[in-house]
Amino acid sequence: MTETTRRRFVAGALTTGAAAALPGAAEAKKRKTKAKARRHRTRTADVCVVGAGFAGLTAARDLVKAGKSVVVLEARSVVGGRVQNHELGGGKVSERGGTFVGPTQDHVLDLATELGVEKFDTYDTGDNVYIADGQRSTYSDTGPTGTAPLDPVVLPELALVVQQLDSMANSVPVDAPWNASSASDWDGQTLETWVKNNSASPKFRRLVPLATRPIFGAEPRELSLLFVLFYIAASGNETNPGTFERNFDTRNGGQMWRLVGGSQQIALRIAQQLGPRVVVKSPVRRIVQKGGRVTVTSDRYTVRCKRVIVATPPTMSGRIQYQPLLPALRDQLVQRMPNGSLMKVDAYYDKPFWRDQGLTGQAVSIDGLVSATFDDSPPDDGPGVIFGFVGGDSARTYQRMAPPDGRDTVLGEFASFFGEQARSPQAFFDTRWTTEQWSRGCPVGIAGPGTLLAYGDQMRQPVGAIHWAGTETSTYWNGYMDGAVRSGQRAAKEVLDEL
Amino acid sequence: MTETTRRRFVAGALTTGAAAALPGAAEAKKRKTKAKARRHRTRTADVCVVGAGFAGLTAARDLVKAGKSVVVLEARSVVGGRVQNHELGGGKVSERGGTFVGPTQDHVLDLATELGVEKFDTYDTGDNVYIADGQRSTYSDTGPTGTAPLDPVVLPELALVVQQLDSMANSVPVDAPWNASSASDWDGQTLETWVKNNSASPKFRRLVPLATRPIFGAEPRELSLLFVLFYIAASGNETNPGTFERNFDTRNGGQMWRLVGGSQQIALRIAQQLGPRVVVKSPVRRIVQKGGRVTVTSDRYTVRCKRVIVATPPTMSGRIQYQPLLPALRDQLVQRMPNGSLMKVDAYYDKPFWRDQGLTGQAVSIDGLVSATFDDSPPDDGPGVIFGFVGGDSARTYQRMAPPDGRDTVLGEFASFFGEQARSPQAFFDTRWTTEQWSRGCPVGIAGPGTLLAYGDQMRQPVGAIHWAGTETSTYWNGYMDGAVRSGQRAAKEVLDEL
Repeated sequence: MTETTRRRFVAGALTTGAAAALPGAAEAKKRKTKAKARRHRTRTADVCVVGAGFAGLTAARDLVKAGKSVVVLEARSVVGGRVQNHELGGGKVSERGGTFVGPTQDHVLDLATELGVEKFDTYDTGDNVYIADGQRSTYSDTGPTGTAPLDPVVLPELALVVQQLDSMANSVPVDAPWNASSASDWDGQTLETWVKNNSASPKFRRLVPLATRPIFGAEPRELSLLFVLFYIAASGNETNPGTFERNFDTRNGGQMWRLVGGSQQIALRIAQQLGPRVVVKSPVRRIVQKGGRVTVTSDRYTVRCKRVIVATPPTMSGRIQYQPLLPALRDQLVQRMPNGSLMKVDAYYDKPFWRDQGLTGQAVSIDGLVSATFDDSPPDDGPGVIFGFVGGDSARTYQRMAPPDGRDTVLGEFASFFGEQARSPQAFFDTRWTTEQWSRGCPVGIAGPGTLLAYGDQMRQPVGAIHWAGTETSTYWNGYMDGAVRSGQRAAKEVLDEL
Repeated sequence: MTETTRRRFVAGALTTGAAAALPGAAEAKKRKTKAKARRHRTRTADVCVVGAGFAGLTAARDLVKAGKSVVVLEARSVVGGRVQNHELGGGKVSERGGTFVGPTQDHVLDLATELGVEKFDTYDTGDNVYIADGQRSTYSDTGPTGTAPLDPVVLPELALVVQQLDSMANSVPVDAPWNASSASDWDGQTLETWVKNNSASPKFRRLVPLATRPIFGAEPRELSLLFVLFYIAASGNETNPGTFERNFDTRNGGQMWRLVGGSQQIALRIAQQLGPRVVVKSPVRRIVQKGGRVTVTSDRYTVRCKRVIVATPPTMSGRIQYQPLLPALRDQLVQRMPNGSLMKVDAYYDKPFWRDQGLTGQAVSIDGLVSATFDDSPPDDGPGVIFGFVGGDSARTYQRMAPPDGRDTVLGEFASFFGEQARSPQAFFDTRWTTEQWSRGCPVGIAGPGTLLAYGDQMRQPVGAIHWAGTETSTYWNGYMDGAVRSGQRAAKEVLDEL
């Protein structure tokens, strides 16, 4: 008997038995209630986790380890959230969402080790490509600056700005950025404003979206300076202060390693361990708190529990109905943390041909839709995969194009990076995260001016029996897989302290 | 036979008849479907309108006038949306939300006239009160500046800044603010940044929230400069360019008149005319478009129709499920148009005692929670009502206070404005719009930097058979009752052009 059949059987037996003993009108009413119960199968658990991304699965794993009963309700048909493999056939995969791990991301690295998921170096041998104003050049990231062969005017400016941002970020407490002594000033302006006021050359300013598009899926104008500084501060761990560079570096940065079997492996293995505790294709519609108990209603199951952990992006958490209503401050926060606009475009080739040309597969371009690329080929022999980030205004432009035009434009850009061979891949694939029903944006929830100052303290504040997880709630590596894992661990601990 | 009974009867008859003709498994399946239909009563109409605020009701009225069948689904138990009367007993009312009308708001004024709702002058005889740094002064708004008795340094600065903003707003097309020639610059910064760069004295800067709190429910840091300029440009009509001053003036401004019976009268009278077409207590959960038809599912009725007009604030429209999904750009817009944070605090007294002291009941204060007050007493003899606006950071502070402390603080401020008598009202009442389930903020959806530039053109863009109304979609008097009426008229016209 499968789990599903068994439950149906039990539910049916209960209904028949109970209804037989009841007379008249009360009987009819009860029968209706039971019929409803049969349709909405009910489970009971200590904790219900909403969302089977890295945060939710980590929380569930920790809770189960501690002996608690858990049900994880996932809207998608698969686990992993914003971390999804793309099957290339023959057991080979590339990644559609979160891909890389790097130094100081200890929580996701430890988890990978525990689960037996090995890491390997991102392909990084050779030169990178830099494109500006139609001019192509190559450079080595092993040089003293590790940056593109920029205009001699721009280079010192870049170094200075990054140094200034890091230094400002240094004064931002990752657990309460709104308490930074300059918080009011920094949350009153956009990153664009700050860059304008702290840089001399328009040439340099054109570089800034190269960072914000892949990192936030946003333009500098959409981001509060305080939020960016918090994000930089969070790009480290308790012993290594965050730096901006770690966000965009491969060597010693956030893109240093990949995971064997694709990053989604971590989610798949946790889900395997959790077994039937994970219910997919079951979006949560309503969370009702009453008399110290919680009822979570999803499309497939209703879960009665003592605590619930909502492990979705903030903006998605606002689409659930809550009874009682979310407190005003929490709801207002949720209205002000949109997900970024980021697409991933992938091209698949017979072989990673760029390697033969002495290229890493990494390119940076200020000209077109694709602002950065990486070699995302499977580790062993096999197809070559280039993926590119299309973010912020470029993502908006891409979305407004007819798909074949978008594809042609992207492949034309790939050709300008890696040669004509890149124009004719075996396959082309894009992941438009803004169209994904259960994410509606990527890579992370972002904050414009004023949000952190007014509502930041609501991010992790439990609401009765509801606790919040998700990478956006993390103090370190916010927006990354490591932040998601950290948040799941923190939320599980909060719940365990209470149960 | 009541309408409800009749429908139940018809639904029952259909079920029995249809099911009898069907054999075996198919029969059982059909029976289930019919049983479902019985629970979810179904209506058919040309157009379904979501939301019975001023926008939705106006749209429905125009459609019915043109001979179309309409069902209006309203989540609240009452119509009016963000415009709600507060009953004082004896047929007297004050207002909890939208209150005033003024010159150039022709659409709501014409509608009031058609419905027989008369207007009367906001009480404006005598002096206004101004509070700064614990100092109280009074002033007349009939003087040359019409503004508070400010520091001689601040006064010219205020005049200059307002003039500059009006002049910049003059170049913003109200139907496409993102096309202004400086749109990119203006949408890249906050109002706070612009004020910092265009004013000399910190004293002056403290005045700016006095405008943004009541008008937007927000601090200058939360607002895109471009959005503010659009809002100013929209504060007029096709023949009278918008001005900033119209937003905060009583004489010749947006607060000039009130409506007999309270502003909600307009909604109540339209609803009366629409009769059973308006269904209250029926929040819309899902909108499904399939084969050129639309199915709108709410808690009480399922409506099958040809077109739907969603007349809610953008942020609330994002909490409905859509099949097919909303386009990515529309969804991203909705994630980026939070409702402002505005509370209205009301105190009720035997009489409008301040009038005997030669005061208008209008006060402006930079010191406390309440930034502005008005006399909201019923027009004839009777109780005196003072209402105050608590917005932006003050609204956040007020929400974090225990209710009795909030009340005491507000009444203490009222006493500092109008004398000790104000401290002891017959009753005190606040409307916390951020806690209202079906508004979650007030007075209007606001835009931080980058939103209009990237997504502004999605605001009125129909999505298949779905059209958008609501004051946020209006080109003139956006955020006001007049804008709501205009938006309803525009959406009805769009639909009529198609049917």
